[in-house]
Amino acid sequence: MSDTFSKQEQEVIYRLIRARRDIRHFASDPVPEDALQRILEAAHYAPSVGFMQPWNFILITSQEIKQKIKASFEETNREQLQVLSEDERKELYRKLKLEGIMEAPINIAVTCDRNRDAPFVLGRSPMPETDLYSTCLAIQNMWLAARAEGIGIGWVSLINQQEVKQILRLPAGVELVAYLCIGYPTQFPKKPMLEELGWKSRLPLKTLVYENQWGQLKTF
Amino acid sequence: MSDTFSKQEQEVIYRLIRARRDIRHFASDPVPEDALQRILEAAHYAPSVGFMQPWNFILITSQEIKQKIKASFEETNREQLQVLSEDERKELYRKLKLEGIMEAPINIAVTCDRNRDAPFVLGRSPMPETDLYSTCLAIQNMWLAARAEGIGIGWVSLINQQEVKQILRLPAGVELVAYLCIGYPTQFPKKPMLEELGWKSRLPLKTLVYENQWGQLKTF
Repeated sequence: MSDTFSKQEQEVIYRLIRARRDIRHFASDPVPEDALQRILEAAHYAPSVGFMQPWNFILITSQEIKQKIKASFEETNREQLQVLSEDERKELYRKLKLEGIMEAPINIAVTCDRNRDAPFVLGRSPMPETDLYSTCLAIQNMWLAARAEGIGIGWVSLINQQEVKQILRLPAGVELVAYLCIGYPTQFPKKPMLEELGWKSRLPLKTLVYENQWGQLKTF
Repeated sequence: MSDTFSKQEQEVIYRLIRARRDIRHFASDPVPEDALQRILEAAHYAPSVGFMQPWNFILITSQEIKQKIKASFEETNREQLQVLSEDERKELYRKLKLEGIMEAPINIAVTCDRNRDAPFVLGRSPMPETDLYSTCLAIQNMWLAARAEGIGIGWVSLINQQEVKQILRLPAGVELVAYLCIGYPTQFPKKPMLEELGWKSRLPLKTLVYENQWGQLKTF
């Protein structure tokens, strides 16, 4: 295994990072098991605090369980719509497709077992949330690996965590970090949906980079 | 820009994911500004809930500020050592190098502005922590991009969050998600340090993958 990445290989990686999208429109084609395994392995190669590897992956393939999750999404989505006050935003919000739970051939719940290796996890105790953060690093590995395989992932955040935890029978101490829909997308859009539809623009990076203290802009 | 990734390109990506390491031994060579920009751009291309882009990056180059952070690390590390009860673990722990704050040419504090776009962030309110999670996705992009450039990143979790927030003058509502050391490593080790030193082994992936509910192992 080579230790370095050529300019050309770096370009592949940057192209991948830019081509990744949050997918909500899925084709019905199944995800091949070997691709699925490679994606999960990529997740498992993420860093974790104290090498804790606190993640589990629950693959949801049962239509019945998907249906329960979908119902939970719909209720949460209705509640969100009521919170929005401006009519214009409401109108746009209504048009957005925010999940692909039923269409995606697989859903994956990514969890964090907060008691793994308890009581002593090297490096965690000053920032106990680093186990949850490690799980997110695994999710990004997974998302990028899937994109490389031509497979899309969509993160459904509009769900009732407690309900989903019950549906999936998560024991106490295991947190639901992400609920993901996985499958071949009908397309990988050029831009994020919310940017495309004018919900929000990409911020200029240079406004977000400071030097030595908050608010002191870095000049490149 | 091509939309797909060839088998060979996929291999580059999987090789990158496996070659990434948490680095604590840095060479003194400076990080070129153009590489640093590419790494930060990679971070900025991460997904975020409601396209919130809640992250900021504070580049720490001042020796004085690094010294303050290092002092905070040392105090936290001493406290951790006292928590460890087994003598054997204690001995091993004492030998571990857990950060490269002073040696790394740059440190980067990655923060999450929890009030960005407040009060309404599309999709966040049922799981308010998704803004912190989005910031972690950006960190993993950054980590992978750096590795592609031959640059190492180490995440220092043994710090006192409140102290570091004060040192960097983070305003209320802005959370410190990660404190990273960045620079050229003396080497990229073959295995994670904690695995190499026998602190902990990599778990078999198949024990972590369930189907449809917690505890029901998926058979591949």
